[in-house]
Amino acid sequence: MQRSPVEQASQPISFETTPDRYRHWRLEVEGGTARLIWDVREDRPLRPGYVLKLNSYDLGVDIELADAVQRLRFEHPEVGAVAIVSGKERVFSAGANIHMLASSSHSFKVNFCKFTNETRLAIEDACAASGQRYLAACNGVTAGGGYELALACDEIVLVDDGSSAVSLPEVPLLGVLPGTGGLTRLSDKRRVRRDHADIFCTTAEGVKGQRALDWRLVDAIAPRSRFDGLVEDRVAQLAAGAPGKDGPGVPLPPLGSKSGENELAYTLLHVGIDRRARTATFRLQGPKGKPPADTGALRREGSGTWMLRLFRELDDAICRLRFNEEEIGVWLFRTEGDPDLVAAHDAALSRLAPSDWFAREVLLFAGRVLRRLDVTARTLFALIEPGSCFAGCLLEISLACDRAYALDDPGRPVGLRLSPLNFGALPMGHGPTRLQTRFLHRPEALEVLRKRTGAGEPPRFDAKAAVEAGLLTIAADEIDYEDEVRVAIEERSSLSPDALTGMEASLRFPGAESMESKIFGRLSAWQNWIFQRPNAVGEHGALKCYGRPERPAFDWRRT
Amino acid sequence: MQRSPVEQASQPISFETTPDRYRHWRLEVEGGTARLIWDVREDRPLRPGYVLKLNSYDLGVDIELADAVQRLRFEHPEVGAVAIVSGKERVFSAGANIHMLASSSHSFKVNFCKFTNETRLAIEDACAASGQRYLAACNGVTAGGGYELALACDEIVLVDDGSSAVSLPEVPLLGVLPGTGGLTRLSDKRRVRRDHADIFCTTAEGVKGQRALDWRLVDAIAPRSRFDGLVEDRVAQLAAGAPGKDGPGVPLPPLGSKSGENELAYTLLHVGIDRRARTATFRLQGPKGKPPADTGALRREGSGTWMLRLFRELDDAICRLRFNEEEIGVWLFRTEGDPDLVAAHDAALSRLAPSDWFAREVLLFAGRVLRRLDVTARTLFALIEPGSCFAGCLLEISLACDRAYALDDPGRPVGLRLSPLNFGALPMGHGPTRLQTRFLHRPEALEVLRKRTGAGEPPRFDAKAAVEAGLLTIAADEIDYEDEVRVAIEERSSLSPDALTGMEASLRFPGAESMESKIFGRLSAWQNWIFQRPNAVGEHGALKCYGRPERPAFDWRRT
Repeated sequence: MQRSPVEQASQPISFETTPDRYRHWRLEVEGGTARLIWDVREDRPLRPGYVLKLNSYDLGVDIELADAVQRLRFEHPEVGAVAIVSGKERVFSAGANIHMLASSSHSFKVNFCKFTNETRLAIEDACAASGQRYLAACNGVTAGGGYELALACDEIVLVDDGSSAVSLPEVPLLGVLPGTGGLTRLSDKRRVRRDHADIFCTTAEGVKGQRALDWRLVDAIAPRSRFDGLVEDRVAQLAAGAPGKDGPGVPLPPLGSKSGENELAYTLLHVGIDRRARTATFRLQGPKGKPPADTGALRREGSGTWMLRLFRELDDAICRLRFNEEEIGVWLFRTEGDPDLVAAHDAALSRLAPSDWFAREVLLFAGRVLRRLDVTARTLFALIEPGSCFAGCLLEISLACDRAYALDDPGRPVGLRLSPLNFGALPMGHGPTRLQTRFLHRPEALEVLRKRTGAGEPPRFDAKAAVEAGLLTIAADEIDYEDEVRVAIEERSSLSPDALTGMEASLRFPGAESMESKIFGRLSAWQNWIFQRPNAVGEHGALKCYGRPERPAFDWRRT
Repeated sequence: MQRSPVEQASQPISFETTPDRYRHWRLEVEGGTARLIWDVREDRPLRPGYVLKLNSYDLGVDIELADAVQRLRFEHPEVGAVAIVSGKERVFSAGANIHMLASSSHSFKVNFCKFTNETRLAIEDACAASGQRYLAACNGVTAGGGYELALACDEIVLVDDGSSAVSLPEVPLLGVLPGTGGLTRLSDKRRVRRDHADIFCTTAEGVKGQRALDWRLVDAIAPRSRFDGLVEDRVAQLAAGAPGKDGPGVPLPPLGSKSGENELAYTLLHVGIDRRARTATFRLQGPKGKPPADTGALRREGSGTWMLRLFRELDDAICRLRFNEEEIGVWLFRTEGDPDLVAAHDAALSRLAPSDWFAREVLLFAGRVLRRLDVTARTLFALIEPGSCFAGCLLEISLACDRAYALDDPGRPVGLRLSPLNFGALPMGHGPTRLQTRFLHRPEALEVLRKRTGAGEPPRFDAKAAVEAGLLTIAADEIDYEDEVRVAIEERSSLSPDALTGMEASLRFPGAESMESKIFGRLSAWQNWIFQRPNAVGEHGALKCYGRPERPAFDWRRT
């Protein structure tokens, strides 16, 4: 039996849960619509020391939300629209819990903001990619992170009662920025004019009623008497436009992982931690058998189908290592298996996806996990060795890495290969595929690879050929490989973790930008900076003074 | 007589200089090419306390470079290519001076990086917009900011002598990022593959010879015996492709400003500082007379032509206030004059620009100044009152502001109007015009304005109409205006300067991104964060330990 969040207070954080274990949310599905009701239990924070008043939230609340959003996609394909509604009267949410933030370490705060934003991106991905639309039913106070959750929805409905307002009070009240992408979603998603956004974000009490509508902060308003009816109508309308998805949902059972002091063991993934070297080694298993031949076979495999299982395990491991193993700065990725079988699974899902929602959801999920890897503040190295299966969707992991090293042994070639999934189904957060960003300087060479793969003759590479083709960083023979890798890891582990975080975030996303990459790259960087500054976290900083009688004392120098 | 940089040590920093007063650079013009020779004087730092060894640089060095780049465009239109060469043997540059950085305040460091990057953007603007191409002749050690300067050039030539390398050693040696856009220029401008960039940026000794060429870090290499010849050939070739520009250059005389304790007084601009309110009020004068009728008349006006003079004064004031008045957090913009005359000057320069390089340079310069304003970490409010002339290029200033307030007095309408310059000649750093970012949510309304302006019927607006059209934030009548503005300023001045900086940087650039905006928005934010972290600036941080025997002691937690 797993422990409840409260019992885990000083335990490693777990990211697995199920609706029957939710403390803070209820998921009600009825026909083509669902209600996701948040009714945060004040007395059930993830760690002791703060009270979750007024639907304010902490990581524990958001882990349940992320679980619900994920389950809606796999277990409730019939749901075309989801209303996020509050279980509290006249309060949608007061946002992220300030006392939790004020008492958290810098790295926890940063990772908390990253995770909550990933959850909101998952909502947007459900709207955009799966036609599962979300509506925020703002029945009262909708502040800070509460409004940021609303911003992640397709539609925002606000009660018009003369007092209920949406607000982002972080700048005026706390001296920090909204931490979950709010500013970028205002400007880029909702296209709120920047002077309106400027007033809105500096007005602690927020904006209500008609002005909220005029300024594009919400999509509809209604007096309290007609509020529930409006929400119902809008949700029904959103659901009516949803694409039909056949068949029952696919349940997502617990992963059943085992964790030891220095390892996380799943079925298809093993993560081993070397604390002295400050590294974690991910070993991912390729498929053992052939892919499902058709939709029926895929459904019979359900959540056990290789790609879904592997990426669920990888997703869980990423989250756990981010939060529970902050000092493990270098992640090494190894794979084991048959590259042709990986490519066969890729091909099967590619083939089924246009007509089968479940196949599509598996690919969309793999894309989200890979994007979570892309924005992970750890050094990522791929180690490509004989017996590995860096093909297709697993090659994406290598392409997501900062460097890839291969052991070049002509007698045991590593057998990298491409699959159709490398050419569009698994895009990075800023838009292009990982191959496109890698071939930015010679798109014509990529076009040749694409054509060959599309024609059913995917190019295969041994280590040397892969380096020549630009897919790997370094190939070394048996004599040099071990030393080369060891020195690279030791060097990396000796560098400033902060400088590496900034460098990796800058080099991983060349070229294009998107709202998503602007949030992670630009907004988060500003927020990280502000979170460190004495004006926020110093003895007289705004974040420290919040809730106390004294006013913050600022160093007025602008940078 | 103005003071030398050294004598100014504890004085406000001045940004005006002339080639005959350069300490660190020599500008040699010969026919269609120029040599910009940097030979930094060790004993002439901007402030006492550090020695500028090995062509390392400080703000004083960069102010001279910025001046030279600007004069090359206006005073030497015949120059088609510029070689940046070192006056020192086997050293191009060791980069920004570390001891200067380690002894500087956070806000100085951040503004130093911003200014140096703006200078590099000015080089890129000369290459892209004026066909004045730059080549970096890297005759030896080319490290950190030295290589970042090379990255700003169109071409990089490196001596191939078995030891000379280009490098970005900031991450491994100092625990910070390259501070002048180096990472983004690697990935986005030179399209260096990210794993190569990763190795390069973590290798203190850098990359030399053939590998530097293979990895796209440089464009050509040559042994020492053929290095000068190669540089000469390449510069001649770049110059041969330059567009011809008629007529002599236009000298840029000193601005002749007067500064008092609380003011900067120029001819067309007055800046008054209210230290208690922490505001600066910019008063910009519109033109007094008609615009030059033709190229001949424009040349006779030379540097005295209204738009050039005004924007030179504005540029100087922005730089001085950024560095010398860090606590003045709100900048207020007022204009005085005839909006129709502003529009007439805009129209004249628009008309002449396609055939006249000087007219074009004036517009390009106005664009650079406005972009400097866009990335200034101060709150910008426009105050639009009777007698003002917020038309065309001056309306851009209002559009660059975070908010615009207008006094709505039907008897004395404010007379805003558009000009052709609002529709493309003065783009923001991320690509679109200020009007395009403002009308992101209704581009069709902007299209109407564009058509009317293009047809010679530019729309005019009084305060109310301007608010309705979406050009202004708030119009208030005489009874309310003063209170409205006063309260807004007081409220703004009470907020955390850091939170405002992050908020403004996020809201000012909706939608598109460019290399320029990625540098200012993403890379700079990461750098600011890292600059604050104990791992860099703590007692045992890498920046503090540099040059000392002990190794830095890092907090290994990744965020």
